[in-house]
Amino acid sequence: MLRSNFLRLMAHGAPSRLMSTATKLTTVEINDKTGIATLTMNRPPVNSQNVQLLLDLQTSISEIENNKSRGLILTSASSNVFSAGLDIFEMYNTDVERLRTVWTELQNVWIALYGTTLPTAAAINGHAPAGGCLLATACEYRVMRPNFLIGLNEAQLGIIAPKWLMSGFASILPKRVAERALTQGRMFTTQEAFEVGLIDEIASSKEEALEKCAAFIGTFAKVNPLARGLTKLQFRGDNIKEFEMIREKDIADFVALASSPGVQKVMGAYLENLKNKVKK
Amino acid sequence: MLRSNFLRLMAHGAPSRLMSTATKLTTVEINDKTGIATLTMNRPPVNSQNVQLLLDLQTSISEIENNKSRGLILTSASSNVFSAGLDIFEMYNTDVERLRTVWTELQNVWIALYGTTLPTAAAINGHAPAGGCLLATACEYRVMRPNFLIGLNEAQLGIIAPKWLMSGFASILPKRVAERALTQGRMFTTQEAFEVGLIDEIASSKEEALEKCAAFIGTFAKVNPLARGLTKLQFRGDNIKEFEMIREKDIADFVALASSPGVQKVMGAYLENLKNKVKK
Amino acid sequence: MLRSNFLRLMAHGAPSRLMSTATKLTTVEINDKTGIATLTMNRPPVNSQNVQLLLDLQTSISEIENNKSRGLILTSASSNVFSAGLDIFEMYNTDVERLRTVWTELQNVWIALYGTTLPTAAAINGHAPAGGCLLATACEYRVMRPNFLIGLNEAQLGIIAPKWLMSGFASILPKRVAERALTQGRMFTTQEAFEVGLIDEIASSKEEALEKCAAFIGTFAKVNPLARGLTKLQFRGDNIKEFEMIREKDIADFVALASSPGVQKVMGAYLENLKNKVKK
Repeated sequence: MLRSNFLRLMAHGAPSRLMSTATKLTTVEINDKTGIATLTMNRPPVNSQNVQLLLDLQTSISEIENNKSRGLILTSASSNVFSAGLDIFEMYNTDVERLRTVWTELQNVWIALYGTTLPTAAAINGHAPAGGCLLATACEYRVMRPNFLIGLNEAQLGIIAPKWLMSGFASILPKRVAERALTQGRMFTTQEAFEVGLIDEIASSKEEALEKCAAFIGTFAKVNPLARGLTKLQFRGDNIKEFEMIREKDIADFVALASSPGVQKVMGAYLENLKNKVKK
Repeated sequence: MLRSNFLRLMAHGAPSRLMSTATKLTTVEINDKTGIATLTMNRPPVNSQNVQLLLDLQTSISEIENNKSRGLILTSASSNVFSAGLDIFEMYNTDVERLRTVWTELQNVWIALYGTTLPTAAAINGHAPAGGCLLATACEYRVMRPNFLIGLNEAQLGIIAPKWLMSGFASILPKRVAERALTQGRMFTTQEAFEVGLIDEIASSKEEALEKCAAFIGTFAKVNPLARGLTKLQFRGDNIKEFEMIREKDIADFVALASSPGVQKVMGAYLENLKNKVKK
Repeated sequence: MLRSNFLRLMAHGAPSRLMSTATKLTTVEINDKTGIATLTMNRPPVNSQNVQLLLDLQTSISEIENNKSRGLILTSASSNVFSAGLDIFEMYNTDVERLRTVWTELQNVWIALYGTTLPTAAAINGHAPAGGCLLATACEYRVMRPNFLIGLNEAQLGIIAPKWLMSGFASILPKRVAERALTQGRMFTTQEAFEVGLIDEIASSKEEALEKCAAFIGTFAKVNPLARGLTKLQFRGDNIKEFEMIREKDIADFVALASSPGVQKVMGAYLENLKNKVKK
């Protein structure tokens, strides 16, 4: 409500170049010259995806869609992590209902981002393992800063990435490359990711990454947005349909896996290790 | 009838190297040494695809199939346009039945060319936007003259290319490249098309393009034609099946879109613009 | 039985580094340091795939799976042929029941190798046409010695490779490249295969090929084997499902084709030609 009033005010000759709104853990800034929205994840220190961040991402994506922005750039407020993926703290020693909520909201963020008709780009200004890579590969374009790591490393953690979670990744890379990377749980350096096509450009700073993302979105300037959006969905429709069909089963599968003693033990050891690192 | 009599005559020591037949808007020449048929679109000035050209293309493809030619090369009689795509004149200010016929015959030409068991190649001797690109990407091989443009630019025109129309294009390029090009409505220069694999070779003249196409068809010289054809259809079968399933719905969708006031207005403006250009 | 006793003995400080078992036409050696099993085809002179070799391959694959090996490397005892494909002798002048058995066991070997959750690699130490290429492309990784040939050349022989038989090959190469190679029945030299990605590395000797295969399997050292295996099957699941659905029909199709007078005649001529070559 407040936001749309603000926008109406801005339309009448406001001097500021950026219009900004925020949820608890995300901010949205719209450049009023380009009409492009920047969605920033802001949950220090590593943007680990708890339910709140997942909900806030959905709120921000809807907001950007409803404001008829020209495109969406996803980035991070951290200086060295794009997003570390799901928050293990929320999944350790918890009840089945919580696990169910975590996975449902991860699904919801993914389908909101992968299935939006808006042009999307990720300015990957830090590491992007697991759920971080998931968000980046749901976008149409990726620009990354040097010397960071990106990949779906679930297999290394003993987790089986379901097909929908791999579908963005697998649409970007040749099938042979994708199968190998996913079975290895491989993390790619920025340079390696560029060479195989997992990212589209390298940028030396966050600002440059945002500019390159904006330039990509600019390539749609003369394209009819409705035709563009429906064309995008024709490429993604099969993956989306397949996801919708197994959505409920996929939640049940995740809950069963994540609540199993074996996986809970791995999570516990991981968190203990983290605690010790912090102490040092 | 006439044609097959002619062929029978030719078989008894005719001096000519080329046997030629014609419809109103296409010609077919069969090289009696190589057994390869060249199908030329001849509707000046830009081979825009009206119903007559679409029907003549079907007639010529059938003829080439029935003459047991060794392969089919598709090219243009124009010196700078392969084909400009559907003829807007036929779709502006017309009735629903006409729109239905236009789209049905476009579907028919595509499936005849995409689904033939004959080896096919396109000698792209000029620009190939939209329906021109559709025909070129329905073939198995593409040779193009320099400094022309090729692409499915429907999104730029506000038209949504249906899945079957994109399927040849999307089978040639990596999925990521195809999604981006189609959402941008991107036109590739000959050089760009070569670099991404959208065309296979560049030729400096039409003659050279025809020779390179013939050389490609020559690679099948020692291959059993039946096994070859069925193998080709195994690669194209999924796209063909999917097309057959949505064929009727796809016509209805096109008619609804093309007869809408918005799209009619765009067509009108386009034709007005064309008229003014011609006057100058 | 004998084998597992032997393994139990070996576990108590045996000096030997290799544990070996054999069927009639295959051997399995397990390196007790790396835990990797090498499966060697040993049917001189060219490892042509008769029913016995196909059965022995299945036995050896099962054995390797049950011994919880860390991975499987497929290679050949011959110095210049990996495998020449199906044994024509077994398919010429025979009854329908025999043809049925040949094809059923080829299917069984393929699904055992393509669908195993174990890491797999092929050390291609010689020519690999047809069924030889089938086995190599069912593996996850390929290392090949120089100056040999690999490819699915069925179209050249007038045989139509069914979709499942092409699926490994078609998952490795871009669709356009795969369609062209399969319709041409193209045989790739080692160098050409490397350039298009059909093989992953070139090795100057069999030993080096085995080492490179072992290094590939070593990349999974820190990966959870269950998560790895299920991730692999998610990439291969669609092809496997499609195969299971047409399995019976595919056998009937092959039997009809292979028992037809035309194909029997081609086989006869081929064998006659072979006999004459041997005489010289």
